[in-house]
Amino acid sequence: MKEKRDLKIQAIENGTVIDHIKAGQALNVLRILGISSAFRATISFVMNAPGAGGKKDVVKIEGKELSVEELNRIALISPKATINIIRDFEVVQKNNVVLPSYVEGVVRCTNSNCISNSSEPIKSKFSVLQSEEEEGVSLYCLYCEHVISEEIAGNLL
Amino acid sequence: MKEKRDLKIQAIENGTVIDHIKAGQALNVLRILGISSAFRATISFVMNAPGAGGKKDVVKIEGKELSVEELNRIALISPKATINIIRDFEVVQKNNVVLPSYVEGVVRCTNSNCISNSSEPIKSKFSVLQSEEEEGVSLYCLYCEHVISEEIAGNLL
Repeated sequence: MKEKRDLKIQAIENGTVIDHIKAGQALNVLRILGISSAFRATISFVMNAPGAGGKKDVVKIEGKELSVEELNRIALISPKATINIIRDFEVVQKNNVVLPSYVEGVVRCTNSNCISNSSEPIKSKFSVLQSEEEEGVSLYCLYCEHVISEEIAGNLL
Repeated sequence: MKEKRDLKIQAIENGTVIDHIKAGQALNVLRILGISSAFRATISFVMNAPGAGGKKDVVKIEGKELSVEELNRIALISPKATINIIRDFEVVQKNNVVLPSYVEGVVRCTNSNCISNSSEPIKSKFSVLQSEEEEGVSLYCLYCEHVISEEIAGNLL
């Protein structure tokens, strides 16, 4: 019995394809976009897919075009990701993600004494800094001045 | 420009396909199997895929055959899921998940005073009970006798 071919994930008619995600980061991409079990649109992804330029992840969101602001958050964890907007099976727009200069309520400050980690209803706020290394991103907490330069993916809210 | 067809997820050569997962539960299936960003095998999934019997999720794990014990935990959150073992593109085995009678270290007890929620290094332990309703599963805590009958997916460890 051959594996049913209709289990394949099809090319999508309308929606957003996020390509060239750093291998292993697809689950964090869903998280940074706020996509959980409650999401009703059709989502597909592949993690650690072998490709010409090494392993990568791909996420497809059917029937939804996300805002540029939402999508650019992906640059925090995968600066080389590309965003493809699909309409009627055609790529009508293709962009690289752009590192935002400021993020609010996306990452937890790693300083446990920071007021954004208290029981107060205060959202974390960071300035985003790009270091000289190609993929180096740091976050500067606007409350406690703590700098996060590692494990951004591990501290997503 | 047509969307590249090679972005499709291919049928897998060897591995495990978990099919007929309750719509929206694919992320929880990955969680219950301990699959995170650090996992190195190729994983693909589709969430809320339209199908003959309504929406469903599918997860494919390439090059890995998981243990029956690991896979049967899926029955806690998706009792109608099926497990297909694939070798050389053929389905060599197809089974329904079977509800385990006991689970350890998989779900958090919802009684905040339970010793399994303390700072002691104690793993949660539950007997699994199937209620008369077709998909009704309850967990009986072996430490505090608390019963969890809702939101099992929301309390995965």
